[in-house]
Amino acid sequence: MTFDPATLRYNDAGLIPAIAQDAASGEVLMMAWMTAEAVAQTLETGQVTYWSRSRQEFWIKGATSGHTQQLVEFKVDCDRDCLLIEVTQEGPACHTNRRSCFYTAVQNGEEMEIMSPMEAANPPSE
Amino acid sequence: MTFDPATLRYNDAGLIPAIAQDAASGEVLMMAWMTAEAVAQTLETGQVTYWSRSRQEFWIKGATSGHTQQLVEFKVDCDRDCLLIEVTQEGPACHTNRRSCFYTAVQNGEEMEIMSPMEAANPPSE
Repeated sequence: MTFDPATLRYNDAGLIPAIAQDAASGEVLMMAWMTAEAVAQTLETGQVTYWSRSRQEFWIKGATSGHTQQLVEFKVDCDRDCLLIEVTQEGPACHTNRRSCFYTAVQNGEEMEIMSPMEAANPPSE
Repeated sequence: MTFDPATLRYNDAGLIPAIAQDAASGEVLMMAWMTAEAVAQTLETGQVTYWSRSRQEFWIKGATSGHTQQLVEFKVDCDRDCLLIEVTQEGPACHTNRRSCFYTAVQNGEEMEIMSPMEAANPPSE
């Protein structure tokens, strides 16, 4: 069946959550939001493209930072209201320079930082 | 720092998305929603508890189906508006009897079913 982004279920703001997972390691990197147009662009270009709720604009991941996400596999869930995007992640996925945004764990009722920022291999490109 | 569920960022409906990941395999199983109270219950009981938007009630995963999720690790993202819950999943996570809800892939513009329902090891308990 030909895939049509309009057949996904978006929230009242026209957005669908997209989970980015490292295709090689299985690590969950981040969650962000897509519009139908961002879904179409991601599939067309192979460069994962979100919708920035704060900036209200398309957000081609890594366009300014160089920390791109190359699409490997695009999955839809049973309710068609969530996406799982398997990617090849260049450098850190998180704006804090950590590989993943999920670097805080709750253990025995306490918040623990369980991941450090990555070392920059090259001078930042932005 | 002591963790307080009230410090998370919920949407206008008082919900936060929670991604469930198989703690052993790294497979992303499903995404569902939690209220602050569901977060507290999950941490207190070790049984992953969501908020059912359709039924408008707490949803202790597997309470009727037996397909429970035992909490292994509870993570918060950098913006505190998304959770990653690593679990020990009993049987299928999806109501279609598949291990994961993400059983549909989009490849070359076509939707493909890439995962079959699991065989029932025992007669269903519901």
